[in-house]
Amino acid sequence: MDISQQGVARKILWINPVATDLYDAAMAEMFQQVTDPSTAVDVVSFPGIGPTHLEYNCYEMMVMPELMRTIRHAEEQGYDAAVIGCFYDPGLRAARELAKKMVVTAPAEASLRLAATLGDTVSIIVGRRKWIPEMRENVHKYGYADKLSSFKVLEMGVHDFQKDHEDTKHRILSAAEEAVYKDGAEVVILGCTIEFGFYQEVQRHIGVPVLDATIAPLKYAEYLVELRERFGWGHSKIAGYEGPPEHEISDWSLF
Amino acid sequence: MDISQQGVARKILWINPVATDLYDAAMAEMFQQVTDPSTAVDVVSFPGIGPTHLEYNCYEMMVMPELMRTIRHAEEQGYDAAVIGCFYDPGLRAARELAKKMVVTAPAEASLRLAATLGDTVSIIVGRRKWIPEMRENVHKYGYADKLSSFKVLEMGVHDFQKDHEDTKHRILSAAEEAVYKDGAEVVILGCTIEFGFYQEVQRHIGVPVLDATIAPLKYAEYLVELRERFGWGHSKIAGYEGPPEHEISDWSLF
Amino acid sequence: MDISQQGVARKILWINPVATDLYDAAMAEMFQQVTDPSTAVDVVSFPGIGPTHLEYNCYEMMVMPELMRTIRHAEEQGYDAAVIGCFYDPGLRAARELAKKMVVTAPAEASLRLAATLGDTVSIIVGRRKWIPEMRENVHKYGYADKLSSFKVLEMGVHDFQKDHEDTKHRILSAAEEAVYKDGAEVVILGCTIEFGFYQEVQRHIGVPVLDATIAPLKYAEYLVELRERFGWGHSKIAGYEGPPEHEISDWSLF
Amino acid sequence: MDISQQGVARKILWINPVATDLYDAAMAEMFQQVTDPSTAVDVVSFPGIGPTHLEYNCYEMMVMPELMRTIRHAEEQGYDAAVIGCFYDPGLRAARELAKKMVVTAPAEASLRLAATLGDTVSIIVGRRKWIPEMRENVHKYGYADKLSSFKVLEMGVHDFQKDHEDTKHRILSAAEEAVYKDGAEVVILGCTIEFGFYQEVQRHIGVPVLDATIAPLKYAEYLVELRERFGWGHSKIAGYEGPPEHEISDWSLF
Amino acid sequence: MDISQQGVARKILWINPVATDLYDAAMAEMFQQVTDPSTAVDVVSFPGIGPTHLEYNCYEMMVMPELMRTIRHAEEQGYDAAVIGCFYDPGLRAARELAKKMVVTAPAEASLRLAATLGDTVSIIVGRRKWIPEMRENVHKYGYADKLSSFKVLEMGVHDFQKDHEDTKHRILSAAEEAVYKDGAEVVILGCTIEFGFYQEVQRHIGVPVLDATIAPLKYAEYLVELRERFGWGHSKIAGYEGPPEHEISDWSLF
Amino acid sequence: MDISQQGVARKILWINPVATDLYDAAMAEMFQQVTDPSTAVDVVSFPGIGPTHLEYNCYEMMVMPELMRTIRHAEEQGYDAAVIGCFYDPGLRAARELAKKMVVTAPAEASLRLAATLGDTVSIIVGRRKWIPEMRENVHKYGYADKLSSFKVLEMGVHDFQKDHEDTKHRILSAAEEAVYKDGAEVVILGCTIEFGFYQEVQRHIGVPVLDATIAPLKYAEYLVELRERFGWGHSKIAGYEGPPEHEISDWSLF
Repeated sequence: MDISQQGVARKILWINPVATDLYDAAMAEMFQQVTDPSTAVDVVSFPGIGPTHLEYNCYEMMVMPELMRTIRHAEEQGYDAAVIGCFYDPGLRAARELAKKMVVTAPAEASLRLAATLGDTVSIIVGRRKWIPEMRENVHKYGYADKLSSFKVLEMGVHDFQKDHEDTKHRILSAAEEAVYKDGAEVVILGCTIEFGFYQEVQRHIGVPVLDATIAPLKYAEYLVELRERFGWGHSKIAGYEGPPEHEISDWSLF
Repeated sequence: MDISQQGVARKILWINPVATDLYDAAMAEMFQQVTDPSTAVDVVSFPGIGPTHLEYNCYEMMVMPELMRTIRHAEEQGYDAAVIGCFYDPGLRAARELAKKMVVTAPAEASLRLAATLGDTVSIIVGRRKWIPEMRENVHKYGYADKLSSFKVLEMGVHDFQKDHEDTKHRILSAAEEAVYKDGAEVVILGCTIEFGFYQEVQRHIGVPVLDATIAPLKYAEYLVELRERFGWGHSKIAGYEGPPEHEISDWSLF
Repeated sequence: MDISQQGVARKILWINPVATDLYDAAMAEMFQQVTDPSTAVDVVSFPGIGPTHLEYNCYEMMVMPELMRTIRHAEEQGYDAAVIGCFYDPGLRAARELAKKMVVTAPAEASLRLAATLGDTVSIIVGRRKWIPEMRENVHKYGYADKLSSFKVLEMGVHDFQKDHEDTKHRILSAAEEAVYKDGAEVVILGCTIEFGFYQEVQRHIGVPVLDATIAPLKYAEYLVELRERFGWGHSKIAGYEGPPEHEISDWSLF
Repeated sequence: MDISQQGVARKILWINPVATDLYDAAMAEMFQQVTDPSTAVDVVSFPGIGPTHLEYNCYEMMVMPELMRTIRHAEEQGYDAAVIGCFYDPGLRAARELAKKMVVTAPAEASLRLAATLGDTVSIIVGRRKWIPEMRENVHKYGYADKLSSFKVLEMGVHDFQKDHEDTKHRILSAAEEAVYKDGAEVVILGCTIEFGFYQEVQRHIGVPVLDATIAPLKYAEYLVELRERFGWGHSKIAGYEGPPEHEISDWSLF
Repeated sequence: MDISQQGVARKILWINPVATDLYDAAMAEMFQQVTDPSTAVDVVSFPGIGPTHLEYNCYEMMVMPELMRTIRHAEEQGYDAAVIGCFYDPGLRAARELAKKMVVTAPAEASLRLAATLGDTVSIIVGRRKWIPEMRENVHKYGYADKLSSFKVLEMGVHDFQKDHEDTKHRILSAAEEAVYKDGAEVVILGCTIEFGFYQEVQRHIGVPVLDATIAPLKYAEYLVELRERFGWGHSKIAGYEGPPEHEISDWSLF
Repeated sequence: MDISQQGVARKILWINPVATDLYDAAMAEMFQQVTDPSTAVDVVSFPGIGPTHLEYNCYEMMVMPELMRTIRHAEEQGYDAAVIGCFYDPGLRAARELAKKMVVTAPAEASLRLAATLGDTVSIIVGRRKWIPEMRENVHKYGYADKLSSFKVLEMGVHDFQKDHEDTKHRILSAAEEAVYKDGAEVVILGCTIEFGFYQEVQRHIGVPVLDATIAPLKYAEYLVELRERFGWGHSKIAGYEGPPEHEISDWSLF
């Protein structure tokens, strides 16, 4: 985790909460192109033992302590925002509790809020049917149940997306067409961070906004950081995101 | 309407859709301080005959043609975004239809999406009971019915807010305290654009985010402009925001 | 606008809020047949410059001032009710504010309340996909989200409906069959006032209630007028439909 | 049950589904004053053994067979509509199944649909807390959950309402004031048919529509009858209100 | 009705509220196998005049008095629980009012609560389309609207299920496959008590839980009885399930 | 963790997912009294480093791996069910994924499903306002948003409940009274597992069911185990609760 950049106005940490750095470099390169010049983005993952993808909720649970430590460490190191890089938005509530001033966001929340601004209905393109229930829960939780046209299943695992780009693109395009022309979606979300690199071509083809689940939360983080810094609009700490007392954290050597 | 600034990266038009320019200068000054240096914001209002506030939905309706013309003219003049400066979000759907690439947003939408990210519950502080039904309709429409703690009524009209700042501040503070401590709100929204200038002090006092209904949509506009320009994520034009055919507009001399 | 009928018990104004009187005569004739003998119905439209249909929300917005003036003028002339003749129910909230005692209704509201009484589920047959988002918003707003089986699209514009009656009838019938047998609708609504003239034949064929979007609101208006006159049950003026103060209307020469 | 009136255009049967005719005459007299001259209304109750009020759902269940027989008999005798005179709307679904062409309605449905047209929010004034759960279920079922401001409890049983009119009026007025000024209701419904006779005075005092639970459904019945006769818009018989086969009814001597 | 078993810890009465004992013996035999040895289950039906199935809501209404009497009699005879054996859950609210301590449940409630614990989505397999509206109402009432994938129609009446077991099984299997693979259901409910005897084979084939509408409520009753006896957790009698006063019951010779 | 009991029919593991065994013995003793003689219940906690309560979501996240390992180990050791002993129901989705046949439940789910059967409305008595947002999310997720009367706050932390029993009882009683008489609750849930030991006295006093958050899920677990064993009704493994592939678990040494 390198945060040594000087002169930047804001630093964002993108966390791939998995035991592989397979996508870190590609993401970092992409993020450099999409952020403001004064924004520095670091990409970290969790090397060593652990799951290399989070298709299962129990895998998410296994990486939670490392995610919490990363969140806490990030704030100590001066990051202004952290993005939890998984479309299940794992640990988002916890991370917001833990962060004192640092902003935290995640792909589903950021993409859905944006989608609701860009159109009246949205479809989410996922890898496997298995992902749907947890993601639908999030759609409802964030307030967009009435705006959900459908989930479309690609029949691919997380690590399949970047293997054969032509095949992936073809499948996404086909799913997006069904979403838009059959299910009534006005906006499409690529419902996995590892579906990165495809949105432009699909969007050009299908003619409606196709949201990339890495860029959308990163830009949302940039936006939120500025709001917090300039206007003090950070996570409300009075109830749901109230943070734990420091003495407990230190007594229990928690993070 | 002066949009002659050179060298700016993006131009945003703030529209006070009322027949008074009473607040234009103060807003313009404030906006200059809160936007990116590369963002130029112009503030316009509708001089001449018409209502000087929009507390009544039928007043909103009376300014719609001028609002539509302003939206269309703004895009022709190269504005990247327009903000409809009234917390009822009047004409938002229509403006998004009309805009080809220009982004359009408005206070309630922008504030609510942000509030939902900052906390689990929100209260909206309004001037009069009369405003509540239309605003509640918007809260439901945007997806935040489950997150609404309460509306709090100040018993003030739009033009009262800026008359006696101490009195206004006192009333807002008192309403905010009830919202937070009695109704369970974690975030407070000042539900009128003319409640500007108060959020900081109230926020400092109450300790939860207090969203200003002018800054919130302006910054959201800035954010949306960047997304549209860099990633092509503008309003979906396939259904709800599909725009009217040019031949009809010209045949009927509509705007 | 001719309201010179004498001896009538109630007078209703049907407003086709468009710049064409193409359908006025046919509607007036039909209305005469469907109302009580003591009800007089006048049909007006907005001649001169303006849109001849309201498929776009921005078109609706352009006719709002004329609609407001018409509403206000209608009450002054002694109309007991006004019906806003477009299935988007444009300006309904505003018109109810403006009307002091006069009752105002519109097609979607009237049809949906009736449909919910006649069956558990309803489908709405529209001309184009573009219409759906705004109409769905209304369905939700009125309380019938759980009762909506589907929208069916005829792929016709407003002015196509009355061109080739056989073709229109065939398309409506086919859509209605899908709605009833595939989507589970128990009631069908023809979701445009210009789909008039078809309900009987479709209803006879399909065997479930097929609601005409002109007759339904007209009869609802008749019903509401009687309730207001006999029992004082008019629009509540204490909050959402509170009307603007006369001094503002006159100071600003609003209507 | 006397339906011998000649020359009437439509006949409506009001059913007080209880074992007392205590209120029949007063209601009949009132109904005569509120209906169209061409409408004949008969009021029946269920003399003999049975409950004299329906505050308990199990009491409702005990009168169901007699209610069903009455519905069936009413249609055979030529009634155009039947109103089930209890604010729980007991047996409404069943009655609509059973009726072939006759229209059936009930107080809660009729009052709520009307209330939703007259204002954005409604409170229902009931006798005892015990009534609320079943009535709230109906409010939700009919689609008006979002419009419900509150239930207000008078602490009176059904048979108390007509005992001391001054006391009842005072209690209703006090509850209505709380509903309107504290709970935010724009419309008030008197949530029991035996609360008849009070709406006018309360309405005059409180200044918002106060719906009487006898007049509202009766007038709704009149309206529905006309729609069915002129336009064939009766209860959809394709699913929820499909009626039972005659051979079963006769084989089992059901009604 | 034989409840003479000695030495049992709890006695449950299964009520087939129809005028046929056609299924009583088979159910009784099945129930003996599925309950705890200390649970005695009696199965009763309503011999004599009346409907032999309850596909119509008006049939349900006709058996309500006998159902109420049976409920009351059951408690007097010492039954700890009663199950109303019809998937419409007819008379459930009334029965809970009437029962003083006895627990009452019914198939839809019991199956749906269980289904929601076993998976995120559920489909219900019914005999005819006619059944859907009333059952959907119950699904919403119980809180599971968001979890409902679909209703699947077998095109069979109640008395068809047990005629040709192979045919029934084949149809259920085919419907269940559509529910699971096309509609997205994770759990399947057989939405009629007379669909008994099929769940095991269908479940084995389809690989997701297939809930039998007789076993599910019976076991739920057993569970509820134990909770009431050990912990006093019976139906709350303070509002919705408050029972009627004994003096009214006796004055009116109600049950 | 001692599961050496012989002759028991089913074994349930209660997991206190915190770093203190302070309450284990008392719970174990209580559980022995409330379960079937053939049910063996073991109570485990997570000794060593970690939080001793889970008032913060980030604390929940820190114990997730140990919870996952405990779940997996429990199934290997032959437990039939596991109960996650915290009213936030932490890790419930993950645990159900991980469990192959073992049933998993948790306090909020079990209490709410039961409460919805016992009454129409429910209030939850919590320690601190901070707990509400996460718990409300669960209430909505499980389907009971419409049934929630209120959350009542005791102003106590988890470890305060068992300190001064009289004080705790007094506070709970006072909160329960408000819930029942002011907020309209028909059922009360004690919304923390460490509020154990109070339900009986509060229930006796208040006269409505008061659900204990330890007994309710334990008994639900017993019930679910029996359903799974006898009828195969376990968690559906086709989508939301599909478990991870063994080869990944072993390749990554996950649990």
